[in-house]
Amino acid sequence: MDYSKAAIKLHKKHQGKIEIKSKIKLKTKQDLSLAYTPGVGAVSMAIFKDKKKSWELTNRSNQVAVVSDGTAILGLGNIGAEAGVPVMEGKSAIFKEFANIDAIPLCINTTDPEEIIKFCKLIEPNFAGINLEDISAPRCFEITKRLEKELNIPVFHDDQDGTAIVTLAALINACRVTGKVIIELKIVINGAGAAGIATAKILLSQGVKDIILIDSKGAIYSGRTDLNIFKKEMAKKTNLQKIKGYKEEVLIGADVFIGLSKPKQLTAKMIKTMAKNPIIFPMANPTPEIMPEIALKAGASVVGTGRSDFPNQINNALVFPGIFRGFLDHRKKLTNQMKLSIAISLAYLVKKPTKNKILPFITNKKIVKTIARAMK
Amino acid sequence: MDYSKAAIKLHKKHQGKIEIKSKIKLKTKQDLSLAYTPGVGAVSMAIFKDKKKSWELTNRSNQVAVVSDGTAILGLGNIGAEAGVPVMEGKSAIFKEFANIDAIPLCINTTDPEEIIKFCKLIEPNFAGINLEDISAPRCFEITKRLEKELNIPVFHDDQDGTAIVTLAALINACRVTGKVIIELKIVINGAGAAGIATAKILLSQGVKDIILIDSKGAIYSGRTDLNIFKKEMAKKTNLQKIKGYKEEVLIGADVFIGLSKPKQLTAKMIKTMAKNPIIFPMANPTPEIMPEIALKAGASVVGTGRSDFPNQINNALVFPGIFRGFLDHRKKLTNQMKLSIAISLAYLVKKPTKNKILPFITNKKIVKTIARAMK
Repeated sequence: MDYSKAAIKLHKKHQGKIEIKSKIKLKTKQDLSLAYTPGVGAVSMAIFKDKKKSWELTNRSNQVAVVSDGTAILGLGNIGAEAGVPVMEGKSAIFKEFANIDAIPLCINTTDPEEIIKFCKLIEPNFAGINLEDISAPRCFEITKRLEKELNIPVFHDDQDGTAIVTLAALINACRVTGKVIIELKIVINGAGAAGIATAKILLSQGVKDIILIDSKGAIYSGRTDLNIFKKEMAKKTNLQKIKGYKEEVLIGADVFIGLSKPKQLTAKMIKTMAKNPIIFPMANPTPEIMPEIALKAGASVVGTGRSDFPNQINNALVFPGIFRGFLDHRKKLTNQMKLSIAISLAYLVKKPTKNKILPFITNKKIVKTIARAMK
Repeated sequence: MDYSKAAIKLHKKHQGKIEIKSKIKLKTKQDLSLAYTPGVGAVSMAIFKDKKKSWELTNRSNQVAVVSDGTAILGLGNIGAEAGVPVMEGKSAIFKEFANIDAIPLCINTTDPEEIIKFCKLIEPNFAGINLEDISAPRCFEITKRLEKELNIPVFHDDQDGTAIVTLAALINACRVTGKVIIELKIVINGAGAAGIATAKILLSQGVKDIILIDSKGAIYSGRTDLNIFKKEMAKKTNLQKIKGYKEEVLIGADVFIGLSKPKQLTAKMIKTMAKNPIIFPMANPTPEIMPEIALKAGASVVGTGRSDFPNQINNALVFPGIFRGFLDHRKKLTNQMKLSIAISLAYLVKKPTKNKILPFITNKKIVKTIARAMK
């Protein structure tokens, strides 16, 4: 199936993917008198007297914003706000279908961190949480950190924590399949953007010791002079042997390749230099770093991508609906311990993982409940 | 019926009034591959290559934002963003029910005109139009004017043009009922905010000559020293005899009272000093300037309020769904000529207006079509 053509046809037919629906009927004068004026005046005044009432008298407690600046849309790069909307509408549709959450896509016309921060603070009165999406590194780190402090509602950058959590879950089960031991793994992460750095962090907190991050200039190591402050921080905790060089060199003997970069980054030749039964997660979207069939032929034991049309979809769509369900149900912020609990709960939803089934598929209705419960 | 209690109960039961709905199904792997990754990548790239495609591949062409800063919510004043949400959700429900338009309520945490303007420019990529709502004067004039210039999509401040148009329509039919001639009327407008000034303007452009605007300090006249620039501009075109004083004096001999202010502004005693068969439109929401039964008892010939529970509802909800339907269908900006055409078309939807039926009721499905057609 040609997904590109079929997707464009589908989007054109429906003119996008989401719409607004009224939860109340508006057929009679009385309906209007209750939903609008005069009745609505009392509802507004009740909130004016006690702002917390907005959580019970408006849709706020079930409503989140999906905010993007269009700078890192999937693996397609900085393609602008308009072009980001189909992805955010897709997230919104997923939010509704799997977590019954109303998510409003808002792709905005700026890439300035201060303006993005300001924007999120402006819209806070309408929402129970903010899902930052596809905002490029390193700006996303500062934006997320500031908003975590400055907002009274949870903020979640899906490309950081969402991807990190789902990758850890996938890795836990790939280890169950291969018999490898997670804390002994040698892991190479190709891509040191939002997802790469967050994934390295969660793996470190899970106890993995041997991680090397690679950016477009090669391995990140302490002392490399062209690193931004976020990569510098990672250089202190990863690649302790200070190995230099490109993928070709760094991958030799590695157990795991995690691709959070762009198409065509990994070759069969490279895989053949890795440790026995290597785990290969080429997760760039929509086109992975290597196609699964090539990776498998080259000796990969388990392969997972970000896409839903191959086995083993490792996509943050598996976790963001549940995490926001947890935010909305428990009104708690996300802690590091919670992230690990979510990954483990998600992994163990699969009773007997196999080479072709390391994660539950997104349509599994247990996922959202399990994740939300892990956040209690 | 106690609308306040019943409205709060209704809002609590449903937790607000609107929700998001997916237009596509997400049941199978293939559904996900088309709505999300990999398929959505091609949709995003198509828009990246040609931004105009966002009008056909996302919900944009049917989607408007309802933006308020919470400073002039109904006639309740500056009660804040959170408290504005129930009204904006009500507008959104009305948009959907009567014009099949998806409207996203966004009440924002600022009252600074530059920040409101910036906000609207940031969200432009998602929307086909922006409905400014319940933003207090005089800031709303500058904000609307600037956005009309700086946005590529239509912007409409409902409290200005919406109210002005529906008031003109009501007045046209009140004249048909009473036999008064519109251009000969002596009209007093109580309230010189967004709605009052816009209503005065549309009446002037319809040919009415004798209009007096009153603010909290009394009649507005050329030479009054405490006027802002917007009131000063109106002082040049209205109250040419420079009558001074408060309602009590100004109303003597007037044919029409238009209230766009707050509760308890008009008394039976004042009505008795007006011309024969006066037309009384106390339109403050939710509590009008005088209750209809008192006005009628005092000699009013036709009474109309903003509320749906009395006869003759004169509310911008009669026009905003149709005007946005027109914007979306024809992609034209609103001209002065269009405003007059809309008012006349709306008025003549009522074949034989009577004292208790000067306007169609909002549930009349012909309204939206008629207004959109008048904008061709």
